[in-house]
Amino acid sequence: MAKKMIGIDIGGTEIKFALIDVYGNISKKWKIKTETADNGNHIPNAIIRAINEEILNGTDGTKDIIGIGIGVPGPISQNGELVVKAVNLGWSDMPLKLVIEKELQLPVILLNDANAAALGEMWKGAARGKANLVFVTLGTGVGGGIILNGEVLNGTHSSGGEIGHIPVQSEEQRICGCGNINCLETYSSANGLLKTMSLLDEKKQLTKDGFTTIDVFDWLKEGNALAEQAVQKTVTHLGFALAGIMNTIDVEEIVVGGGLSEAGDLLLEPLKTVIDRHVFPEIRGNYGVKKAELGNDAGIYGAVYAYLTAQQHPNER
Amino acid sequence: MAKKMIGIDIGGTEIKFALIDVYGNISKKWKIKTETADNGNHIPNAIIRAINEEILNGTDGTKDIIGIGIGVPGPISQNGELVVKAVNLGWSDMPLKLVIEKELQLPVILLNDANAAALGEMWKGAARGKANLVFVTLGTGVGGGIILNGEVLNGTHSSGGEIGHIPVQSEEQRICGCGNINCLETYSSANGLLKTMSLLDEKKQLTKDGFTTIDVFDWLKEGNALAEQAVQKTVTHLGFALAGIMNTIDVEEIVVGGGLSEAGDLLLEPLKTVIDRHVFPEIRGNYGVKKAELGNDAGIYGAVYAYLTAQQHPNER
Repeated sequence: MAKKMIGIDIGGTEIKFALIDVYGNISKKWKIKTETADNGNHIPNAIIRAINEEILNGTDGTKDIIGIGIGVPGPISQNGELVVKAVNLGWSDMPLKLVIEKELQLPVILLNDANAAALGEMWKGAARGKANLVFVTLGTGVGGGIILNGEVLNGTHSSGGEIGHIPVQSEEQRICGCGNINCLETYSSANGLLKTMSLLDEKKQLTKDGFTTIDVFDWLKEGNALAEQAVQKTVTHLGFALAGIMNTIDVEEIVVGGGLSEAGDLLLEPLKTVIDRHVFPEIRGNYGVKKAELGNDAGIYGAVYAYLTAQQHPNER
Repeated sequence: MAKKMIGIDIGGTEIKFALIDVYGNISKKWKIKTETADNGNHIPNAIIRAINEEILNGTDGTKDIIGIGIGVPGPISQNGELVVKAVNLGWSDMPLKLVIEKELQLPVILLNDANAAALGEMWKGAARGKANLVFVTLGTGVGGGIILNGEVLNGTHSSGGEIGHIPVQSEEQRICGCGNINCLETYSSANGLLKTMSLLDEKKQLTKDGFTTIDVFDWLKEGNALAEQAVQKTVTHLGFALAGIMNTIDVEEIVVGGGLSEAGDLLLEPLKTVIDRHVFPEIRGNYGVKKAELGNDAGIYGAVYAYLTAQQHPNER
């Protein structure tokens, strides 16, 4: 029987678990609520309990489980042991790796959730067979992960792939959650698109109170000019940033995930047009822009893949 | 006696040579004119002749020379054997590595000249002791090199580090030599600064015909508002691009070289201010922006260093 690993994706509202073998087959999935009380200090024990109850104490046993990969919504320290900060969870320098390893007696790899999703898409999703890619996720914010030669670019200050915080030149002044002004995610996230649509629809003909990005794309399909402008602005800022990234690190593929990517070609086609106009001639025509394929499972796959590859290069940790 | 290497930097007007030992000591430097007639087809033989005449046939002999590193003004093929294109030289798919190796019976490493300069600054210049950096050179155009974990990021299409072609959002339409519109180098190179100054000085009070970037910085020192605006625009576009790069690949240091960097703090201080405003909070205060130290020798040092490190990782080629 193939050796198995536990993949975990810690989010602000729930924590997803999966039992996955080394070929990527999922044999079990479950989840628990994220308990953020007391600065999220109960989360590690909740994870340990969830694994003990669902697997280790059950018939699945530990004997075939070789390790655990955990995707976390925040940067990981250079030595791979601490979650430096996870605002959504209340964490600051949380020694998650050692706590889990000590209790479960299984080796643990931590990585940032966007990096995990990037690895997942490379292993089992839209970027199968590629070793160099940019993953960008367009949700509430804009997250990103860079993979070079099959490995996550974590960065000197654990800030590699913070694509959402590439600055945008604009007449506007949008304040980002990070404290900076005019970060890409203030324009090209779901929230950014909503904001842009609100500003364009000055007379509140469409937006009134309460509308979603799905509404915006529906209005676009109906031929509404304001919705078209709003989407165009969203993809223009994103496309400039991605073309700039391509001309800097020159990877094979761009994978776009997150809620906004559900709009499919309504988002991807104008985005490709912008990127294509601004990539270096040697790159044009020789790279791909694809929709992510794994949805919410990308992080779980990637966390496990990170564990697998870390075992293959033990000296690099 | 320490083993020696030959470092070569091929430019559009001259080809620089140096005899350098493995510790980076230069024992001899010379140069020849670049003969671009017949699509630069005479250049390889001119290089071979220059090496034979100056070294191999002389008292320096070949016995201590272990290899040759060559920086070239164009992209290198993935297998490291061809210069894919070098517009200034007239080259297209020039098999420079094999030609030189065959004639001189010495191993040769080729690399892009901006990448060579980046490695040189890491080995012996402004980024000594760092393994992760961005090098940007502000000359006629804007060149760049990315070093991650001590190695050049060459890219999937040999276009890694083409920082000068990151697109800039602007009301203007400046056509770049690469064919794209509003590439960074149309704003933040020496030529870009001259263009900006000309456009700002509508009444030709200062610029008339013929002025240099040195003039612009002199006017800035004298407190001229137009020169200040021109320099500010130059550093703003560059600073946005560099902050975006930092938030993507999160390196330790930015090294700025090329003619414009000779302006020193008049350029670097406002540049630092822009970058600092837009880097991710985790990075702010934890990275450096430095002026390049090796000037025209950076490429020679880097070419030799590339040869040295390639020998240490022979399986990666």
